[in-house]
Amino acid sequence: MSHRVVIVGGGFGGLYAAQKLKRANVDVTLLDRRNFHVFQPLLYQVATGGLSPGNISSPLREVLRYQRNARVLLAEVVDLDVAARRVVLAEGDFVEYDSLIVAAGASHHYFGHDGWQEHAPGLKTIEDAIEMRRRILYAFEAAERETDPDRRRAWLNFVVVGAGPTGVELAGALGELANDTLKHEFRAIDPADANIVLVEGTDRVLPTYPADLSAKAHRSLRRLGVTVRLGAYVTDVKPEAITIESHSDLFVVPTRCVLWAAGVQASPLAKLAAGQTGGEQDAAGRILVNPDLSVADHSEIMVIGDMAHFAHQTGRPLPGVAPVAMQQGRYAAKRIANQLAGRSSPPFEYIDRGSLATIGRSAAVADFGRLRFSGFSAWVLWLSIHLLFLIEFRNRILVTIQWAWSYFTRNRGTRLISGGPSWGAPTTGGEEDSPN
Amino acid sequence: MSHRVVIVGGGFGGLYAAQKLKRANVDVTLLDRRNFHVFQPLLYQVATGGLSPGNISSPLREVLRYQRNARVLLAEVVDLDVAARRVVLAEGDFVEYDSLIVAAGASHHYFGHDGWQEHAPGLKTIEDAIEMRRRILYAFEAAERETDPDRRRAWLNFVVVGAGPTGVELAGALGELANDTLKHEFRAIDPADANIVLVEGTDRVLPTYPADLSAKAHRSLRRLGVTVRLGAYVTDVKPEAITIESHSDLFVVPTRCVLWAAGVQASPLAKLAAGQTGGEQDAAGRILVNPDLSVADHSEIMVIGDMAHFAHQTGRPLPGVAPVAMQQGRYAAKRIANQLAGRSSPPFEYIDRGSLATIGRSAAVADFGRLRFSGFSAWVLWLSIHLLFLIEFRNRILVTIQWAWSYFTRNRGTRLISGGPSWGAPTTGGEEDSPN
Repeated sequence: MSHRVVIVGGGFGGLYAAQKLKRANVDVTLLDRRNFHVFQPLLYQVATGGLSPGNISSPLREVLRYQRNARVLLAEVVDLDVAARRVVLAEGDFVEYDSLIVAAGASHHYFGHDGWQEHAPGLKTIEDAIEMRRRILYAFEAAERETDPDRRRAWLNFVVVGAGPTGVELAGALGELANDTLKHEFRAIDPADANIVLVEGTDRVLPTYPADLSAKAHRSLRRLGVTVRLGAYVTDVKPEAITIESHSDLFVVPTRCVLWAAGVQASPLAKLAAGQTGGEQDAAGRILVNPDLSVADHSEIMVIGDMAHFAHQTGRPLPGVAPVAMQQGRYAAKRIANQLAGRSSPPFEYIDRGSLATIGRSAAVADFGRLRFSGFSAWVLWLSIHLLFLIEFRNRILVTIQWAWSYFTRNRGTRLISGGPSWGAPTTGGEEDSPN
Repeated sequence: MSHRVVIVGGGFGGLYAAQKLKRANVDVTLLDRRNFHVFQPLLYQVATGGLSPGNISSPLREVLRYQRNARVLLAEVVDLDVAARRVVLAEGDFVEYDSLIVAAGASHHYFGHDGWQEHAPGLKTIEDAIEMRRRILYAFEAAERETDPDRRRAWLNFVVVGAGPTGVELAGALGELANDTLKHEFRAIDPADANIVLVEGTDRVLPTYPADLSAKAHRSLRRLGVTVRLGAYVTDVKPEAITIESHSDLFVVPTRCVLWAAGVQASPLAKLAAGQTGGEQDAAGRILVNPDLSVADHSEIMVIGDMAHFAHQTGRPLPGVAPVAMQQGRYAAKRIANQLAGRSSPPFEYIDRGSLATIGRSAAVADFGRLRFSGFSAWVLWLSIHLLFLIEFRNRILVTIQWAWSYFTRNRGTRLISGGPSWGAPTTGGEEDSPN
């Protein structure tokens, strides 16, 4: 019987690991509770109506269909049994492994205020993106119908929390939506009156980038009409307002649309894995992995991607970005192949090929160490790299066309208020299915 | 003040009426509880993973943005006040009209068995299509995981109820999905073992088409592996089985996926309109309209599309298809313009340009009165006409590319099991958000 590799999670880490095992003499089982891989870096474009969910998703079965040593199971992992080397699925089934790769990712983190989640959705899944899209578009619709000026203004206040790449990209896309895309479409309001606030706790946007690029991103955001509040923290989120503390002043912003792009926390699976292996977790729930990505003294278990805290290289944990997950996925696969061949593996080493963030149409910042640039050329690079890493060729074509279309028409095609039983109003509104 | 026209519903009827009023000296208010128009004839392609919801939807605001005499309100109509000439919206707002066009469409009808709806979803909205897609794809996933042979076989039984155009197109697409698209993707099952049953009460498929085309459609379905049961009625639908009566025999088919393409019923708004105007309703809830589409003695109210029972031309009500709604929408607009110009209007007359239905890849039937044809040429015609009537140019490009892609690769791009809180399992399974 071949060596059994079980991979939990079909994100960048898990999927790249599975693919890299193609020629190894192993049986791969990829478990995910979704039947598709999501290209997370473009979720913000689904949230702002630029792309369809299908454009950034690929069925896992389709990606792996010709890889005969791999099977995909749509399953929820509810427990691990490290002693028996089993992964326990919902409904009591289990899958046995010789090697286990845990790549279940991360979800939002509200710093102990779980109640905020309902009023400030995050952006990790396709459903999250559809929910954000619904809230953003519904706010403009409600403002158009609202006759009271204060309430109308509240509908047009949008607050994005966190100015990392996701927050910056979301705020930039919102600025474009309000200023360009929705132009001419309303009669009672001017969408350009929307007030988009980006709240960041540190002293600059994109705090992990070099300071000069942060400054450029800040200027690009300002050009799109985004108000950036630095050194500011959220202290409360209510259905109709958010409270922000900035330099010991408290601001209450009346708003019905708060978008959360701040803290993330490792999947609850991390706690299970840590508990059973004796591994340690950091404050964000990530597991401190060994230099070879294994956990504690369990050489047969590797944790990769957003769930892993890997600080052996720089002293600080690697960031939760796609390239880290991809490289760790490939490393994990190779380490298993080496082991089967009786070879040892060098420690994992992350090769940082640079960072890119986009701020609306034709602006971006790129940080490639000594090489830093911004503006149109960075934006073209951003487009090319994102297209290149989209898994399916068909999606590359579809995304190219929609981007070209948006670029020339300033339009966004998939502005649907859909999903959920209360499709029209946000959940708190509680509308019901009815006549028209 | 201009003449105020209120249109309820942004489907084919309502949207075409609004557009046709572009040059009239009127103020148009288009009310819909969705912010987008849906190209309903292609919903079955969303339900079977061929197209994304965004590809067949257009934001109503975008379509009407340069029509300065039209405004769009995202609103639910909860009542009419015919005496005061008002449409009452949820939350107590109202909109006053001088002319009212009611075009709120139809929903599914379970012939008095409303409990069946939960286990046999219909196909009228984007959410319906996503729900069908989820059930279809989940059934294959569950079969792959199931180890008990009987239960596995039950997961691979699919029953489509009703062999009108929607049922035939759905069954055909299911046949392709099972035989072509999913090939190579599973390890424990062969998707081609799926058993697709199409249940029809009359003695042939596509009963409104000429008999020779029905026979051709029947043969095409059989080639795709679809079992057609004619003269058969559904007598019960349970979560894990459907009971079919055929020539006084009862068959119980164990299945977890029943798709409803049988009866439709006019929007509940029809009852309100009939009650207040003194108009009559037929058994399907449609309002019997006058030759000029007005209702009873209310010349200022017109009912069009799937809600209208118009039998003045042939003695039988016109079918609930897009061309009828479009022509009635344009007629309603013209009648208002005539009235404002002091001209009278001739009665509405439906020009039947023919019918088309497709049965999987490269097969279709076309009925243009004396000209009837089938096979590849009918299919090319079907493609062209559907592309032509897609409202936005962008969607035409995107749909063309995806169709070309599917044609050459036999693949379907948007096979996502998504939507709803219980995204994985069907609603009855009741899975919760959890680790991976």
